[in-house]
Amino acid sequence: MLDAAALPIVQIVHQPGVIDLGWGHPDPALLPVAGLRDAAGAALDRYGAAALAYGNQQGPGPLLRWLIGHIGAREGRAPAADEIIVTGGISHALDQVCTLLTRPGDPVLVEQPTYHLAVRILREHPLDLVAVPSDAGGLRPEAVADTIAALRREGRTLRFLYTVPTFNNPTGVSLSAERRRALIAVAVAAGLTIVEDDAYRELAYDGPAPSSLWSLAPTGTVIRLGSFAKAVAPGLRLGFLTADAATVERIRGGGVLDSGGGINHFTANTVAALCEDGGFAAQGDRLRAAYRARRDALAAALMNYLPPDCAWTLPTGGFFIWVRLPEGRDAAALLPRAFAAGVGYAPGQRFHLDGGGGRCMRLAFGLYSKADLTEAARRLGRVLGAG
Amino acid sequence: MLDAAALPIVQIVHQPGVIDLGWGHPDPALLPVAGLRDAAGAALDRYGAAALAYGNQQGPGPLLRWLIGHIGAREGRAPAADEIIVTGGISHALDQVCTLLTRPGDPVLVEQPTYHLAVRILREHPLDLVAVPSDAGGLRPEAVADTIAALRREGRTLRFLYTVPTFNNPTGVSLSAERRRALIAVAVAAGLTIVEDDAYRELAYDGPAPSSLWSLAPTGTVIRLGSFAKAVAPGLRLGFLTADAATVERIRGGGVLDSGGGINHFTANTVAALCEDGGFAAQGDRLRAAYRARRDALAAALMNYLPPDCAWTLPTGGFFIWVRLPEGRDAAALLPRAFAAGVGYAPGQRFHLDGGGGRCMRLAFGLYSKADLTEAARRLGRVLGAG
Repeated sequence: MLDAAALPIVQIVHQPGVIDLGWGHPDPALLPVAGLRDAAGAALDRYGAAALAYGNQQGPGPLLRWLIGHIGAREGRAPAADEIIVTGGISHALDQVCTLLTRPGDPVLVEQPTYHLAVRILREHPLDLVAVPSDAGGLRPEAVADTIAALRREGRTLRFLYTVPTFNNPTGVSLSAERRRALIAVAVAAGLTIVEDDAYRELAYDGPAPSSLWSLAPTGTVIRLGSFAKAVAPGLRLGFLTADAATVERIRGGGVLDSGGGINHFTANTVAALCEDGGFAAQGDRLRAAYRARRDALAAALMNYLPPDCAWTLPTGGFFIWVRLPEGRDAAALLPRAFAAGVGYAPGQRFHLDGGGGRCMRLAFGLYSKADLTEAARRLGRVLGAG
Repeated sequence: MLDAAALPIVQIVHQPGVIDLGWGHPDPALLPVAGLRDAAGAALDRYGAAALAYGNQQGPGPLLRWLIGHIGAREGRAPAADEIIVTGGISHALDQVCTLLTRPGDPVLVEQPTYHLAVRILREHPLDLVAVPSDAGGLRPEAVADTIAALRREGRTLRFLYTVPTFNNPTGVSLSAERRRALIAVAVAAGLTIVEDDAYRELAYDGPAPSSLWSLAPTGTVIRLGSFAKAVAPGLRLGFLTADAATVERIRGGGVLDSGGGINHFTANTVAALCEDGGFAAQGDRLRAAYRARRDALAAALMNYLPPDCAWTLPTGGFFIWVRLPEGRDAAALLPRAFAAGVGYAPGQRFHLDGGGGRCMRLAFGLYSKADLTEAARRLGRVLGAG
């Protein structure tokens, strides 16, 4: 029986003695507590009761204006005022896209491996998921084209493709500029909508993030889901969506927003004040410096401690290093042994629709110190070496 | 073309010169700006980074504990620790209930008249709505039983009944204790789930609100959707749901919460601090006093100015007075004339699935001062008198 006194504040559950790289969470010590304290006060001073009333369905004007400017400056393409809407974070935005823009049973493409919890949301609607294999460079545009053609032969029309092209979850890989162009060409030719999960864009460690598919594609091809979860704090549950005006209008005019006003309005005003006052930029600089150092620490430790027949690619952003184990190993089967040795990870099976991916594991480097990451790699090396 | 500089903060649009009783919104002057300023600061001081991390999927412990205590004290029945979950407000909770607990095409009962924006959400899933007529006392339990029986004969099994039994939107009416008991008996006998929209419970003006269906029914019969929108501020987008443990677990374990952690976590922590520090009780007292006086002012003015063949019932809580016009009048058709005369309302057709209800109009008294409400009634009387 659940004890009310023990109900926690946060989602994460720590196992004593385990450095669990399975959690794709930020380090609480990096969250901007003081900045958001100031911002909440500033929002209520600046916008007054408007920050607490039923909000504009599209999101509060100040946050939309800041986002339009920020996106324009970062990506070289600013959404028009009717091409952006504030969301309750990517998970919630994806949920709304499914409710309002799909019909039950519609086929939807997902890359494989893919973000496992997006799969949960898609299936709940219920959509019929079709996996497209990717390689070391991420999603293969020709594989997308082949899958579309195969479904067409069965008389089925795809609703959309869900993909994380930048600092992918789980692989950390970003699509090359060439693949981005080719993927967009395939989508345009097939009339396919791409739902671009762009959660990690602000966490670019080696120069600017690749251009978003949204910024590269003709209007109407891409619905891009952005987020403040990784760039500011996940507990805000705040993000945004850029797309063509008709798609934005469909979401703006949906029942949930019409009934309740803008999603998460008080928080959206708080984040508007934070952004207006320079807090977004400052927090981004702080996070990039911290996570870059952690990525480097984990990568160096993997090089030191993992058996030489393990392989991985250094991600240029995001939270994850995707490790491929030698033939014959099974990440899910190894996990109990790893936990016993004081290290955790997310086994590759979790990110595959078909139970495959067992030779891979996702290591997240956001939550732990460099020393902990080094120790985690040492423990993992022992578990793998003891094969 | 939408101008970014003109993007508003709030949802409401004021028409110059019109007192529009069509908006079921609170008066911005009554929203607790200073209280939430303090509460946001207190939450970040008290809970620190935990208020900004991925939140417990069920909602933050401090808010859940306060709610369990509050509900127990108010309703004589406290939910167990696994029978409550924090939501993003009633609209969002209803959306999640539809996604996770129904299948597309499932038949769902709604009372008629009913809250029109809930209908939008239900239809988007898409559910098949079946209207149950109500009378001056609200939903008729026998009509529910008859409708269930008729659907059974067609071989169809209902997913749930959606109802606003307390200070109904749009009618303001509350189900009697006898009808509550009878409705629950019908639901239990038929194995029907009741989704109880309990948005207005805290706005009781003449003694305590009637017992919730949830508090009266056997566990598993009622999913009750509660809200902070009316009791504190709508822009918070925060509410709660009480139900049996299996239903709570289904929502807690759904893709959106699993992926994003607790809904609206930062705001939930802010409201927890507000409630812990007595701000909920203080705000409730303030709102009840203010809205009671407005209800009385509007009722007195309707008595003074409306033609004698108009009828309405004084609501004992909530936001709305539902006026029935003389035979032959049509509220939707009259609306342009009313706007021209400087008064607005929500025509009854909006709350009916079948386009009926044209002899009724919903007047909301939350947004305007007593003087404005009196003037609105005077204008409305002129429009109706001029027949």
